[in-house]
Amino acid sequence: MSFDRLIERIERSGNPTVAGLDATIENIPEYIRENSYKQHGETFLGAANAILDFNKGLIDAICDIVPAVKPQCAYYELLGWEGVRVLQETIQYAKSKDMFVITDGKRNDIGTTMVAYAAAHLGFTQLGGTTGEAFGADALTVNGYLGSDGITPLLDICRQHDKGIFVLVKTSNPSSGELQDRVIQGDPVYELMGNMCENWGKDLHGRYGYSPVGAVVGATYPDQLRELREKLPHTFFLVPGYGAQGGKADDVRHAFGKNGIGAIVNNSRGLMYAWKKEGCHEREYAAAARRAAEKMRDDLGGVV
Amino acid sequence: MSFDRLIERIERSGNPTVAGLDATIENIPEYIRENSYKQHGETFLGAANAILDFNKGLIDAICDIVPAVKPQCAYYELLGWEGVRVLQETIQYAKSKDMFVITDGKRNDIGTTMVAYAAAHLGFTQLGGTTGEAFGADALTVNGYLGSDGITPLLDICRQHDKGIFVLVKTSNPSSGELQDRVIQGDPVYELMGNMCENWGKDLHGRYGYSPVGAVVGATYPDQLRELREKLPHTFFLVPGYGAQGGKADDVRHAFGKNGIGAIVNNSRGLMYAWKKEGCHEREYAAAARRAAEKMRDDLGGVV
Repeated sequence: MSFDRLIERIERSGNPTVAGLDATIENIPEYIRENSYKQHGETFLGAANAILDFNKGLIDAICDIVPAVKPQCAYYELLGWEGVRVLQETIQYAKSKDMFVITDGKRNDIGTTMVAYAAAHLGFTQLGGTTGEAFGADALTVNGYLGSDGITPLLDICRQHDKGIFVLVKTSNPSSGELQDRVIQGDPVYELMGNMCENWGKDLHGRYGYSPVGAVVGATYPDQLRELREKLPHTFFLVPGYGAQGGKADDVRHAFGKNGIGAIVNNSRGLMYAWKKEGCHEREYAAAARRAAEKMRDDLGGVV
Repeated sequence: MSFDRLIERIERSGNPTVAGLDATIENIPEYIRENSYKQHGETFLGAANAILDFNKGLIDAICDIVPAVKPQCAYYELLGWEGVRVLQETIQYAKSKDMFVITDGKRNDIGTTMVAYAAAHLGFTQLGGTTGEAFGADALTVNGYLGSDGITPLLDICRQHDKGIFVLVKTSNPSSGELQDRVIQGDPVYELMGNMCENWGKDLHGRYGYSPVGAVVGATYPDQLRELREKLPHTFFLVPGYGAQGGKADDVRHAFGKNGIGAIVNNSRGLMYAWKKEGCHEREYAAAARRAAEKMRDDLGGVV
């Protein structure tokens, strides 16, 4: 239960990194794109299959040193239902390589509808006398603006199927403070949301002390990260904003508890497009991603 | 621009109703489900195609008296990528019948990723030298917890392609107040979010005076609905919560301005499953939906 499965993988690899899988068709290596377009045309099918090839190459290259992947739904929906098919295939492929999969969908809705999202992304769908697994991720990012009704349906699924959720608490973007930093009776909104996470997970602590209700807290706000780490001892953090958005190892260090666990740090562009930064040939993109992942592991290892 | 296209359709039909398309496989008429399962098996394909048949029958029956439909993403994702394909086909079918389509996805993310969601649901995707339309709805529901970064990418698309968004302000569920009713410097969070909607849309008013930045305000909170209508004169409202959730015509009346426009009221179960309530044969589900839509139109007409 809870995030034990994820934490085990982090401990085993010594690497609290999650690789974001957010590729766009124009940014992947040309040879993958052109191969697929040649076969399927400049279509959603062609673009989606190219992304799948790209993702598989990346997963093969890093699955033994990076414990988790985080596909971002938006980039798959951008390619219509063909893209969503590739989201599902990417999730299944990463799981087949024993990676922990966090679907970044930031889903949210009221009770009955949230039950459908929970079943879709983390659970099972009833089809007549049989059941099917629609997406089958290990965890899902969600938005708590609607309050407990939008979260409790997920808790049942977490309990039944050993899954987790990450609730948006303090996001990494420049304007996140417009609502999240506003003060309610002495406390900012992000802290109220953080406290709700502790509360939603209170009866579900795993053997590392964390519940399946995690929080998204951006690396770009290190002071808030430190403050929330202290105040939310049972809430595991998903930390975006490292790398391209400006967050450094010294910033994300605050996300980890004294035992060195308690968070996983996302890197999307820094791994996916490492070959561009390194200046090597695009056909080496997977090897370059692995080198970047090793560098990130060592970078984080220096502060955690 | 803005919601002019929607308001024109409401004026023409004399009916400020949007039909929610949120069907689940176990709740649709047995003959549709069994036909499709017989053809495709008890699979995601079989279930998704059954939902599509159901939706088309409903759209055919009401498209001349109901101006808009609102498919809820969660129920399509519940059927995996086959379900998402049917979401896309449902959107296209409703548009071919000249209905206004609001995709209820409550999407949210930071800037660069929100650009992808905006293009996916309301705009176009670049595929090599060509472009494709991934989902092609007229409007999208979104969640503003991340602030302006998550909204401004949508405004560009609204301007370019004459589309709209509905931001969650005061949702219809019982726990919506946990965050939304909390008070910041004298004003509740829902009012802060409502003011942000007015501000995001301030340079984009259409000829009815409404911007393309609408707000979701639940019928289950009539006092807040009245308060927000007064304070947000340029914000068009999408009002869930009528019918199954308990909202009555007398509650939603506050959503409309003095000119009788300014809002559209959702009804999902009350139309989709009208045949159950009416007690007629399931094969009459579409005719029953039409009768329920006429009743709802007259019900709202009595107070607007």
